[in-house]
Amino acid sequence: MSLPVSPLAPRELPDLPPIAGIRLASAPVGGYYGGRRNVLLLAADSGCQVAGVFTKNRLCGDPVTWSREVIRGGALRALLVNAGNANVAVGAPGMAAIEAKTAAVGACLGVPASQVAVASTGVIGQPLDPKPYVAALDGLAERLSERAWLEGAEAIMTTDTFKKAATAQCEIDGVLVTINGIAKGSGMIEPNMATMLAFVATDAKLDAGVLDALLREAVATTLNAVTVDGDTSTSDMCLLMASGAAGNADISDAQDARLDGFQAALEAVLRDLAILIARDGEGAQKLITIDVTGAKDEADAMLAAKTIANSPLVKTAIAGEDANWGRIAMAVGRSGAEVNTARLAIAMGGTAIVERGGLLAGYDEAPVAEHLRGREITLTVDLGVGHGKARVWTCDLTHGYIDINADYRS
Amino acid sequence: MSLPVSPLAPRELPDLPPIAGIRLASAPVGGYYGGRRNVLLLAADSGCQVAGVFTKNRLCGDPVTWSREVIRGGALRALLVNAGNANVAVGAPGMAAIEAKTAAVGACLGVPASQVAVASTGVIGQPLDPKPYVAALDGLAERLSERAWLEGAEAIMTTDTFKKAATAQCEIDGVLVTINGIAKGSGMIEPNMATMLAFVATDAKLDAGVLDALLREAVATTLNAVTVDGDTSTSDMCLLMASGAAGNADISDAQDARLDGFQAALEAVLRDLAILIARDGEGAQKLITIDVTGAKDEADAMLAAKTIANSPLVKTAIAGEDANWGRIAMAVGRSGAEVNTARLAIAMGGTAIVERGGLLAGYDEAPVAEHLRGREITLTVDLGVGHGKARVWTCDLTHGYIDINADYRS
Repeated sequence: MSLPVSPLAPRELPDLPPIAGIRLASAPVGGYYGGRRNVLLLAADSGCQVAGVFTKNRLCGDPVTWSREVIRGGALRALLVNAGNANVAVGAPGMAAIEAKTAAVGACLGVPASQVAVASTGVIGQPLDPKPYVAALDGLAERLSERAWLEGAEAIMTTDTFKKAATAQCEIDGVLVTINGIAKGSGMIEPNMATMLAFVATDAKLDAGVLDALLREAVATTLNAVTVDGDTSTSDMCLLMASGAAGNADISDAQDARLDGFQAALEAVLRDLAILIARDGEGAQKLITIDVTGAKDEADAMLAAKTIANSPLVKTAIAGEDANWGRIAMAVGRSGAEVNTARLAIAMGGTAIVERGGLLAGYDEAPVAEHLRGREITLTVDLGVGHGKARVWTCDLTHGYIDINADYRS
Repeated sequence: MSLPVSPLAPRELPDLPPIAGIRLASAPVGGYYGGRRNVLLLAADSGCQVAGVFTKNRLCGDPVTWSREVIRGGALRALLVNAGNANVAVGAPGMAAIEAKTAAVGACLGVPASQVAVASTGVIGQPLDPKPYVAALDGLAERLSERAWLEGAEAIMTTDTFKKAATAQCEIDGVLVTINGIAKGSGMIEPNMATMLAFVATDAKLDAGVLDALLREAVATTLNAVTVDGDTSTSDMCLLMASGAAGNADISDAQDARLDGFQAALEAVLRDLAILIARDGEGAQKLITIDVTGAKDEADAMLAAKTIANSPLVKTAIAGEDANWGRIAMAVGRSGAEVNTARLAIAMGGTAIVERGGLLAGYDEAPVAEHLRGREITLTVDLGVGHGKARVWTCDLTHGYIDINADYRS
């Protein structure tokens, strides 16, 4: 199945600069996706420090189990990603395939298999034969390049209709560092702690413990704030790798003010990736940004925002360009978030609709209807309780989603 | 918008017998639904005992607030239902409209307004003018009849494509009693404590406290076990009325064994209505029955079953007749229910697919594919943990759902 590119795709992607110490190569393996490149090998030549966040799905795949263990060691030498087969729920052959692949990567690059992470995405429940991947390794290793980021972004796609990449620069204590990120994700998207697949690399010199703290903080408001269909993958992971080549000063405390710029740049990269994922939501015709304010706390704000974002009735109303704000009120009510009925406010596209719990006197739907005809929709809800707030990105629910998912495997 | 009748509609509805002491009348008011009858007046001539369960949506509508208060008194004289306008989230005019309507019903029938329940279903957020409803009352009162149950079932429909009614008889301590039920519901369906609209009446002689206990127990495994889209209405309610005309012996304890037959008959009526609602899920092409066994407890079983039932990826796979059991595993994993990965089992249409956590050796997809081409799909999941179990009904997610909901108000 070949899908048209999302109408919400960005006009152009940033040109990702090299990250010293990190090289990539990709290739088509196994005939998935009409022969498009679908395997990515990433090598950290001198090793790198690494942190990761992973799916909370209780039936997480063997690749997640393996890579969580690799990341626990804090050091990474290589990463092998394949798209097309998630290597999940296949029984004992699942881990055997990972052992075969990582042993082969270790032998090929001369690194310990225990420092080789893997990620797999695609169909669940089909045994993955490691042989074609092993056979492709020598060719991949020969072509490793610091310049191959966008090919890497392509190689990890499944039903994605465009590549997702972001980059940012900042200084750590006067030293310029770069952060590159690539991601994939289009359906089965409601990350819970991590997301889809996202691989972020920097030349900053930061140890695994610091990376872990920075990553967890950044993910909460970025990758964990995007949802397409509320379904949480068995395979989600986001890795943050630091080659150390920039040679900045050692900083051992993630809260050190000298890391503020890096934290902001990391969040910018992850936010860009999160929004790109919402823009490529299966069948998406409209990008929806939902701001909830006035909540009891941030968790309550996120609960309300996610419930609105996942409501099939809200998503289909927006697909139909229908200013049916009552469905937003319904979703707020069922979310379980604390709400002050007498102070509830709802706006779309900046036009106030509900204030103090009721329809605004003299409300004119025309500007809202005009806003809904656009590609980028904003919803704002104030719960009237406290100061908690959250922002979530999602997309509308259209015939395209049904087309893609009613016939995914054929 | 006129919708084709669901292909899952029953061939015929039962002929609901009279319930002595309960009369109904219906009429078209306000030009909704192409002039179809959309208002129901139900009168309990000598009063009846009543219990009710209501939506847990925190932004419940004024009709729910009003009727909850009426039911608290335990006695009911009349019920006025309208379809087309939910009278929700309209500010102060909402309760004013209810006061006007119930005062008029009280005057018309010579009963206290405080014993007149109301229910409203339809669009949220549009002010409801009580005048046309008040004007229709005299005509309705003249035509009240014990024989008008199926017209009543029609009058409460919104996007429903067929009427929903069920009936059962049983004995209480040797006295024959009858239970009739009607319901509406098609979208915005994941009842949480109550459901959509359902009105159940019996001639049994039971007081409000006993009715309340019997109703809560029956709803848990019937109306609360159906879901179409996971969205919880602001207007859900299920009322159980008892006219007492059957003259059975007084029974003041809901656990009394003489009520076992009544409890079973009540559950049968509510289960019939629940399945009818799933059969009329917006856009439904297939009825899906999900059984979860082997859970830690019943709550965990219900959690897993509801998560499978609400997964857009599971629902679209079944719409596409795709035996993509991996999505069922994904949903189980994300549900949060406790699962023993080494003992997980999944079957479709009675064919085992996954056993002991992995794909069954020699699994042949052909009988599953054949099953999926039918109208009535069964999924069975064993979590391998304990003895908790639950059954949930839902439907597939199709283009029809998008058609209906992307353009509901126009």
